[in-house]
Amino acid sequence: MRVEFQADLREVSRLLVELAEGARVAMRRATTALLAADRAAGEAVIEQDADLDDLYRQVEEKVADILARQAPVASDLRLLITALHIAADLERMGDLADHVAKTALRRHPSPAVPAELRGVFKEMANVADAIAGKVATVLAEPDAKLAAELEADDDVMDNLHRELFKVLLGDDWPYGAETAIDGALLGRFYERFADHAVNSGRRVIYLLTGETVTDGSVAGS
Amino acid sequence: MRVEFQADLREVSRLLVELAEGARVAMRRATTALLAADRAAGEAVIEQDADLDDLYRQVEEKVADILARQAPVASDLRLLITALHIAADLERMGDLADHVAKTALRRHPSPAVPAELRGVFKEMANVADAIAGKVATVLAEPDAKLAAELEADDDVMDNLHRELFKVLLGDDWPYGAETAIDGALLGRFYERFADHAVNSGRRVIYLLTGETVTDGSVAGS
Repeated sequence: MRVEFQADLREVSRLLVELAEGARVAMRRATTALLAADRAAGEAVIEQDADLDDLYRQVEEKVADILARQAPVASDLRLLITALHIAADLERMGDLADHVAKTALRRHPSPAVPAELRGVFKEMANVADAIAGKVATVLAEPDAKLAAELEADDDVMDNLHRELFKVLLGDDWPYGAETAIDGALLGRFYERFADHAVNSGRRVIYLLTGETVTDGSVAGS
Repeated sequence: MRVEFQADLREVSRLLVELAEGARVAMRRATTALLAADRAAGEAVIEQDADLDDLYRQVEEKVADILARQAPVASDLRLLITALHIAADLERMGDLADHVAKTALRRHPSPAVPAELRGVFKEMANVADAIAGKVATVLAEPDAKLAAELEADDDVMDNLHRELFKVLLGDDWPYGAETAIDGALLGRFYERFADHAVNSGRRVIYLLTGETVTDGSVAGS
């Protein structure tokens, strides 16, 4: 029974890693669609989103199957419920990549992001990519130290988000309302992507240590 | 055992109804903060958000407790996992009300929403309130017909959201980027609030009928 349960958990963990890596690839392609006005990259993200939704359902089915067969209690049960939450966060990250890709495609062949904002979006994309990569690593091999790094990464993302808004709201903003709105929504998509990733990391820490990392701006979102 | 399980489910359902009603009240107050520049209403939303987070945790604990004690299978198990998803949607609705309230407070005592947009926001708030009310009703007493109405309500919300963007992006938009960004983000908060509510309704339908209502724009978000 115990051996079988361990094998079940490995399968859940494998699916979660696949989902995390899928969300990471999706956001990377969405960024290419956004910053290189690359239509094919944007369309690939939209196509891929169905695969991520499917992976999410696989996690749900696998967890339901384990609960039914093994009737786990205490920490094993907590682990499975946490896996469901992590899957929901990762699936949502895929949705946010999809939103970025759709924004890029809506403006194509014009760039959705004007020259003044390319630098900050490039940095936001880099941080998002690093965070998603760490989440995939932590899920494959739980590591509280690496998971804790995500908090600092999230602070970097929040600073970039603030910097973006400073440009958007500057007196010398040379573009109209439409470009400002695109910039604000895109910024929110990257920032939420990072939030969900960091949330996953927090849940891994919780599993490893039993300690809840709370932060009003992210917990439960 | 069966009688005990039914009592357990009633308790979960009671908590979900409380959470749905809490989210509804939160958005109603947030709208007052937004449209009447009412600081006390905005502050009440922010205070109340911790109560909603706490209710959410109570659902999680109760479900974990039932899983451990009763080891349910098949449809009973599906029901409990669905309850977790519904709780996550409702908790997120509370977060979105919190975002509306914070936006209103950030601009206080100026209104965050200019005169041109008050009408559309009032309508969005009315639809959000109706949807949240139906979700609370359906959770208290499952009713597939009422749950199905949520789809039409969501279409109304989507139309209002499009109407809002038409004003924001009109050539005659008389305000700057900041007001346009506030309008776009606020519109998104109401629209997402409705999405999460409709998602909950879909999950109730799924429990009642076994049928999945799919819609790419909302499923899994």
